[in-house]
Amino acid sequence: MSTPRIWLNGHLLPADEARIAPTDRGLLLADGLFETLLAKQGRIIRLDQHISRLLEGAAILRIPPPFDAETLRAAAHDTLEANGLADAERASLRITLTRGVAGRGLAVPPAPSPTVMVTASATPAPARSVSVVTSSVQKLATSPASALKTLNYTDNVMARLEADAAGADEALMRSADGGIACATIGNIFAVVDGVLMTPPDDGAIRAGITRGDVMTLARDTGLSVSEGPLSIDMLTRAEEVFLTNSLWGICPVTSINGSSVEVGPVTKKLAQALDEAWARDVA
Amino acid sequence: MSTPRIWLNGHLLPADEARIAPTDRGLLLADGLFETLLAKQGRIIRLDQHISRLLEGAAILRIPPPFDAETLRAAAHDTLEANGLADAERASLRITLTRGVAGRGLAVPPAPSPTVMVTASATPAPARSVSVVTSSVQKLATSPASALKTLNYTDNVMARLEADAAGADEALMRSADGGIACATIGNIFAVVDGVLMTPPDDGAIRAGITRGDVMTLARDTGLSVSEGPLSIDMLTRAEEVFLTNSLWGICPVTSINGSSVEVGPVTKKLAQALDEAWARDVA
Repeated sequence: MSTPRIWLNGHLLPADEARIAPTDRGLLLADGLFETLLAKQGRIIRLDQHISRLLEGAAILRIPPPFDAETLRAAAHDTLEANGLADAERASLRITLTRGVAGRGLAVPPAPSPTVMVTASATPAPARSVSVVTSSVQKLATSPASALKTLNYTDNVMARLEADAAGADEALMRSADGGIACATIGNIFAVVDGVLMTPPDDGAIRAGITRGDVMTLARDTGLSVSEGPLSIDMLTRAEEVFLTNSLWGICPVTSINGSSVEVGPVTKKLAQALDEAWARDVA
Repeated sequence: MSTPRIWLNGHLLPADEARIAPTDRGLLLADGLFETLLAKQGRIIRLDQHISRLLEGAAILRIPPPFDAETLRAAAHDTLEANGLADAERASLRITLTRGVAGRGLAVPPAPSPTVMVTASATPAPARSVSVVTSSVQKLATSPASALKTLNYTDNVMARLEADAAGADEALMRSADGGIACATIGNIFAVVDGVLMTPPDDGAIRAGITRGDVMTLARDTGLSVSEGPLSIDMLTRAEEVFLTNSLWGICPVTSINGSSVEVGPVTKKLAQALDEAWARDVA
């Protein structure tokens, strides 16, 4: 396999020549954002929505993006192609935006030179299901950045370490009220008494694009959908539980803290509906 | 001035040749830690404590540090020297440790190759005083990483942007109970009814090395010191307020949300005591 190529500030470079400066604020201060995207046979799922979300987040962080949406769209496709992934069954893309290189300290440079980087790699079919544990890590609203897909994943890594220690695939992060907020890699849904529940977009969680898709599809198929607190008790007695993100789509949870959960009809129906919706998405 | 030199994984390199890989988890996930240190005429203040804290944090994040304390001490001194700062009146150092390059996603590599980077630059005398505003950003305990000096400074940058918008030098971050937790660049002390108050080391704040020094010195000089919640009301009626960090030592606050505060005798006495304590610290 040839060296991967990375799109860095407008140039496609061999990965081992692509250089992030040691003084990039993305590295020093987690001062930036990213998006993870799925490409199927060269079609990038929900590309416009991901780029819009990135640019909206940049506005909140006051990072002036050095490239417009059209350029970022092209960069994503060019990166796929440069890595021989234009026809790949499944490829993952990541677009990262940082405030770029600046002087020492927190002071926000008035005219930053942001860093934009696009990477792509072949990605295997998602896990058919995952086991999860409820971690001790909380996902709380601490600032307007909490709901953004910022580079701050330290706590997600901490939660993931708890899953590793418990022999589980994935960890659930807690809400302020002691319930469940999300998984480290996406959002969570549970079917409780026939209602599809998901924690609310309350400023604490990153409400994913796939989460939105799933809620729309569920309502379209006549399901009762509720955004509201998901307590441990509700999770424990849920008929079905699944996670969502842009790479996996819908991933059933088959074990919670060691207790088995069935993959039920709602999960299967929505997974198929999402596949079909994504197949209609052209970008 | 010649090109700055950076110590990167055991090698001193010209800064423009030092390369952080685009796949470094420090950049992608804020998966790492750092320390900021002050050097005065080549003496690095509290070097041992900073390195101990870095290594303790690494153990909590389960990042196996690739260099021992002795090597990191030498790296700090070598970096000062390579930048012509061995005799500088004041220089700042930053030691950054990340989990290093890894594959896509959150999965923690079982045998990581961490990145260690040491940078140094001349640093001016600290501000004689700062104006602050109370920001809307909260500093909360969300995981064991909250109390560590991780790369996650996104929220601190958000708070700093609020200070910029208000024309202030610095922002105070809020505690869970609506009071004050810390500043974006360090800890906060207030003299309230003659007692030196500082918010508690409750797992939310990063309790700085200088904070510890100041508490010890205050007690040594017979002051009454209290670690406890610092409400907005207490802050508003405080006789004196100051911030602490490793670069500035003690920095008086002379304006809070536009209201003036005097630089009082406690602040002056402790600032002098800290200068003297640091002058006795040999590393």
